[in-house]
Amino acid sequence: MKTQLALGVDIGGTNTVFGLCDRDGNIKFETSISTNDYTNPADLISTVHSKIKETGLLETIAGIGIGAPNGNYYTGTIDFAPNLSWKGIIPLAGMFKAKFEKPTLLTNDANAAAIGEMIYGCATDLTHFVMITLGTGLGSGVVINKKLIYGDDGFAGEYGHIRVIPNGRECGCGRKGCLETYASSTGVVRSISELASENKFHSILKQDDATSARDVFVAAEQGDLFANEIVNYTANILGNALADFTCFSSPQSFVLFGGIAQNGDQFGEKVKAIMDTNMLKVYENKVDVRISSLHDKNAAILGASSLVWNDLV
Amino acid sequence: MKTQLALGVDIGGTNTVFGLCDRDGNIKFETSISTNDYTNPADLISTVHSKIKETGLLETIAGIGIGAPNGNYYTGTIDFAPNLSWKGIIPLAGMFKAKFEKPTLLTNDANAAAIGEMIYGCATDLTHFVMITLGTGLGSGVVINKKLIYGDDGFAGEYGHIRVIPNGRECGCGRKGCLETYASSTGVVRSISELASENKFHSILKQDDATSARDVFVAAEQGDLFANEIVNYTANILGNALADFTCFSSPQSFVLFGGIAQNGDQFGEKVKAIMDTNMLKVYENKVDVRISSLHDKNAAILGASSLVWNDLV
Repeated sequence: MKTQLALGVDIGGTNTVFGLCDRDGNIKFETSISTNDYTNPADLISTVHSKIKETGLLETIAGIGIGAPNGNYYTGTIDFAPNLSWKGIIPLAGMFKAKFEKPTLLTNDANAAAIGEMIYGCATDLTHFVMITLGTGLGSGVVINKKLIYGDDGFAGEYGHIRVIPNGRECGCGRKGCLETYASSTGVVRSISELASENKFHSILKQDDATSARDVFVAAEQGDLFANEIVNYTANILGNALADFTCFSSPQSFVLFGGIAQNGDQFGEKVKAIMDTNMLKVYENKVDVRISSLHDKNAAILGASSLVWNDLV
Repeated sequence: MKTQLALGVDIGGTNTVFGLCDRDGNIKFETSISTNDYTNPADLISTVHSKIKETGLLETIAGIGIGAPNGNYYTGTIDFAPNLSWKGIIPLAGMFKAKFEKPTLLTNDANAAAIGEMIYGCATDLTHFVMITLGTGLGSGVVINKKLIYGDDGFAGEYGHIRVIPNGRECGCGRKGCLETYASSTGVVRSISELASENKFHSILKQDDATSARDVFVAAEQGDLFANEIVNYTANILGNALADFTCFSSPQSFVLFGGIAQNGDQFGEKVKAIMDTNMLKVYENKVDVRISSLHDKNAAILGASSLVWNDLV
């Protein structure tokens, strides 16, 4: 009997990546297509199906896991995703299930990342943890007793939209001061223009569209004082937020993933130091900050596929 | 066969109340002793035992539930409770179990209140909700999938110590701006001196130790402008906090209990209106604010006893 494989599909605003992997996270096949090429999700599913069929591994698929923006686990739908051209409510899990005749689960990308860390990554030993994905926005997935929590409507765990600065930065959600306006790639770049500092005038950082969060971290490493201030400012806001968020679920660890965290353990260490200093006494020295171990692998496919091993098989 | 009863014990800084009730929340016996009279918890337990024995109902007890400050569900201990004269770690559940020879569970008072609402109160129909107790401080108990969450160490759900105003009011925990420094009886009284207002000079409210949160609410009802400002300020901070806390577990409802909430549905309605206005779009019109239905009953005994029906029987 052939090894069972999971099909992991990550729907992104730009690309859809998908692949086949086994229970240990070994990827047997992976590829990527442009999401925007498909105005109809049924056509995208047909393309995924043909490409998987070509591998000759279709019969070995135990199930399908999908990570998608605004993905609702309970309904298997993508609900009003602002970054996709598919409007309204798309019953994507049902459509995949019908085409492949395989059980299919769907959730949002941060939740998929959390399960990915639990199945293949740095959280296999954890019972209670919170995944924090630092990308264009800040996503989160909350694991309690080894189970992801979805809440009443499937949308629990939106830590990026907890407001940390009253009347702070304007957020895409229409509110002000949300954590993700500070602690995300976008937030780091915004700090170039929005953070007041005398060092700004001597900085190599430019206030233009070409400057990335990575540029800020590289400049900080090279001794740019203003860049360093931005890194510390970001770590300070995130560390303080994590200290407070510990009051929700009292996790063993926060797991950081994405561009900002990837700039090395140093950022994670700064976040942890600030979290520790601002922690409620009862939680002191109990909460770890880990950096995802899936950075150098195809985390998106692994995260999506992990739904299969966690909830289906 | 006689009806099975639960013994509920609520340990408070001033009084310990305890009583026997059936599965439907009918209290068959209740009384109260002064916690401070017992420098040794074993003596307090002996007194509780004698008083229960006198009722002739000892044999009908199915189990014992205890609500206590800093109560740890996992270990059955009271850990370093600042308001009790018993210092260090007190293995209270084990001591009750040994004396009564009945299964015993212990948790903190807000968690007990949450389970009380789920078993007897206004949350019997809810799967996901958050209990908020507004007393001297702000306590909370988080229910997900009909289960109270305890986190890794037994101390999950400390919403009173999430900081809502950066560098805000000094809190007893040593940090600044915690929700409970604003939204609690103590917080309301603090607002008399700490909230700036031109109306303060025309107010009947006095900045002295004799003025209570209830006085503030009564004055507000009587048209005192400053008192009304304090009520609105408190509702504003609490409503905004609940909007953000929805991002954690996406509950169906918050359930408010305690002096402030008891001042009628009006305060709850204000909190809900502010929560709704500040809610992340995905949660809009999904989250209710309810007022405990156990106010006029002995909520402390009911909360503690509910542990027995929820977790033991």
